[in-house]
Amino acid sequence: MNDFEFHSPTRFVFGKGAERRTGELVRAFGGTRVLLHFGGGSIRRNGVYDSVVAALGAAEVPFVELGGVQPNPRSTLVREGIALCRREKVDFVLAVGGGSTIDSAKAIAFGTLYDGDFADYYFGKDVKNQPHVPAALPVGTVLTIAAAGSEGSANSIINLEPGNLKRGATGDALRPRFSVLNPEFTYSLSPFQTACGLTDIFAHVVERYFTPTADVEITDELCEAVMRTVVRESARVMADPRDYGARANIMWAGTVAHNNICGVGRAQDWSSHGIEHELSAFYDCAHGAGLAVVMPAWMEYVMDTDVARFARFAARVFDVAATDPVVASRDGLSRYRAWLRSIGMPLSLSELGARVEDIPALVAKLGLKGNTLGAFRPLDEMDVTRILELAARA
Amino acid sequence: MNDFEFHSPTRFVFGKGAERRTGELVRAFGGTRVLLHFGGGSIRRNGVYDSVVAALGAAEVPFVELGGVQPNPRSTLVREGIALCRREKVDFVLAVGGGSTIDSAKAIAFGTLYDGDFADYYFGKDVKNQPHVPAALPVGTVLTIAAAGSEGSANSIINLEPGNLKRGATGDALRPRFSVLNPEFTYSLSPFQTACGLTDIFAHVVERYFTPTADVEITDELCEAVMRTVVRESARVMADPRDYGARANIMWAGTVAHNNICGVGRAQDWSSHGIEHELSAFYDCAHGAGLAVVMPAWMEYVMDTDVARFARFAARVFDVAATDPVVASRDGLSRYRAWLRSIGMPLSLSELGARVEDIPALVAKLGLKGNTLGAFRPLDEMDVTRILELAARA
Repeated sequence: MNDFEFHSPTRFVFGKGAERRTGELVRAFGGTRVLLHFGGGSIRRNGVYDSVVAALGAAEVPFVELGGVQPNPRSTLVREGIALCRREKVDFVLAVGGGSTIDSAKAIAFGTLYDGDFADYYFGKDVKNQPHVPAALPVGTVLTIAAAGSEGSANSIINLEPGNLKRGATGDALRPRFSVLNPEFTYSLSPFQTACGLTDIFAHVVERYFTPTADVEITDELCEAVMRTVVRESARVMADPRDYGARANIMWAGTVAHNNICGVGRAQDWSSHGIEHELSAFYDCAHGAGLAVVMPAWMEYVMDTDVARFARFAARVFDVAATDPVVASRDGLSRYRAWLRSIGMPLSLSELGARVEDIPALVAKLGLKGNTLGAFRPLDEMDVTRILELAARA
Repeated sequence: MNDFEFHSPTRFVFGKGAERRTGELVRAFGGTRVLLHFGGGSIRRNGVYDSVVAALGAAEVPFVELGGVQPNPRSTLVREGIALCRREKVDFVLAVGGGSTIDSAKAIAFGTLYDGDFADYYFGKDVKNQPHVPAALPVGTVLTIAAAGSEGSANSIINLEPGNLKRGATGDALRPRFSVLNPEFTYSLSPFQTACGLTDIFAHVVERYFTPTADVEITDELCEAVMRTVVRESARVMADPRDYGARANIMWAGTVAHNNICGVGRAQDWSSHGIEHELSAFYDCAHGAGLAVVMPAWMEYVMDTDVARFARFAARVFDVAATDPVVASRDGLSRYRAWLRSIGMPLSLSELGARVEDIPALVAKLGLKGNTLGAFRPLDEMDVTRILELAARA
């Protein structure tokens, strides 16, 4: 096991009607003037917007609002939000939505306090705007889709324009102070949105599970626990989108999958996420759908790096009975693909609208420039090309 | 799944040499004058005391010290610590030790700011010394035994004298601000201490796992993950007490078992802990050893409440293959007892030095007075008597 730090200070308020506490929570974390940040308007149709505004009103918290966050959230809107927060003297950013909205809110929260272009952080520049740490306005979230895990993570990913470069920033200041999780808010998601979320949650664990680090039984076990839960509950939720128990288990699994309790003490990989981000930036496809295409291809390509681990994955997560590790590994991958298909995910580049002839451009956009991607098996540009070619053939 | 709040803000710093950061961490959480609180002197023999004092010195953090915490920590020493903190204007309590030391430190941290007898909190009185929440000095820990989970919990249990009443308090202010976990610090534990710790960690999960709440698959899975890990790693650590990987997995499992990530969204039971606290208060036996006697007897007594759950426990944690749920449940209990025996734990009251004729007095000290204990199967005084009788016969 590697040395590590684990710090997940977010206060999670989970359950039916939890959003009624939003105003009180903003107050508890020092907010007196809020930016209410959201997406394309679904929260107006399903009543979430009204509930949250009522909760802010009950706590007498004034707010300004900025909607219009798109999937693969754009830097243009982030810059608009930063200007708005400065002009309106906002001291708390409240994201109501999914991962894109929360990531956009985190970027705004940072940028408002940063004396320069917020994108510096996402390009890996030194952005310490107070001793040792980048500072940000406090962020809270009201989650409406179980997927990205951004409600409990220190991460934010933004589509940087021009050029559509999807890049991430990580820092303790980006962790939400609180997150409100009401599983009923996910009832109105389409089957495709639900499935994309399930795929993303599962992938967050996979990126941590396939590691070169030895002797991490406790986190291996926690990873398998979350992956099994996602697979089991996916069948229930696809059959009945208003199954509260299934929605609740999935929502909490989504948080646990990404607040890093499943990742401490081990080298993590994140190659599939890295490759997928170029796909979704290029084609503006759903992140979950992109992962469903990339991750099985990545598994196929790297399987021989550690067949024992793939065999364990197959046995523990997909109940594969084969005892030969190579056979078990392949069975596990087949079952993973079958599970993705069963919830309606694409498996090949073409289903995603991607084209084989774009592969060189996609690989170039990763910007590896002689460096490698990932830790389980470090990948160079040729490796990534092969993985995308496998994804084209799936 | 029940509605819940989860808030575990402790910063965990884990690994070899992590204690070197103690002074810096005290500073980061606002400490300028520390009470260094510890137990019977083992930390002086194994070098932990010197390492921590050096780290405080490097960060120029002055401290006063109070040693002498005993297992089943006493209220008398807590009162001494409170007086010392007030006299010396201490603003941070640093516990170096195991659960008893940390629980004692939490009690001192609360009592220093409370205008009354600290035991009020432990007797369930209204002790709000600031709006809505009991306040306490900030607490940090340097852990030396994987067992109680107090390094990441909101709980503290003190042996209240006179009368040896073991009572607990719970509150967010009692959660340590940081905890330093260096698995090497547990190398020098005796096999008995190590086994008591393993038993306690396992029991913290059991008390959460056996629940009347339906549809909590995600936490069921996390519970099973931790229990399996503890059983697996116990064999390694009993064979080689200096196996870093085993010590590391066990240490982190001990934290995960009790910061409540395994308990959210469900009614918990805690009957076995409640009954055991009377045993260890009465006979001053080790808490883990007491649990090894009480918990299997509790299982035997309540098994018919939900045989399906016991069968799942047997299959998932102890690989019991039997398909008949009653047979599987009994097999699971047998294997749990066999595991406890394999790590050197007692199984019967007499091995603990307890006497059958004391049972009525032990039951009376629980103070049920017509109320019941636990949630999986609420127990009255007669039920507790029967459980202790089963423990006598084991």
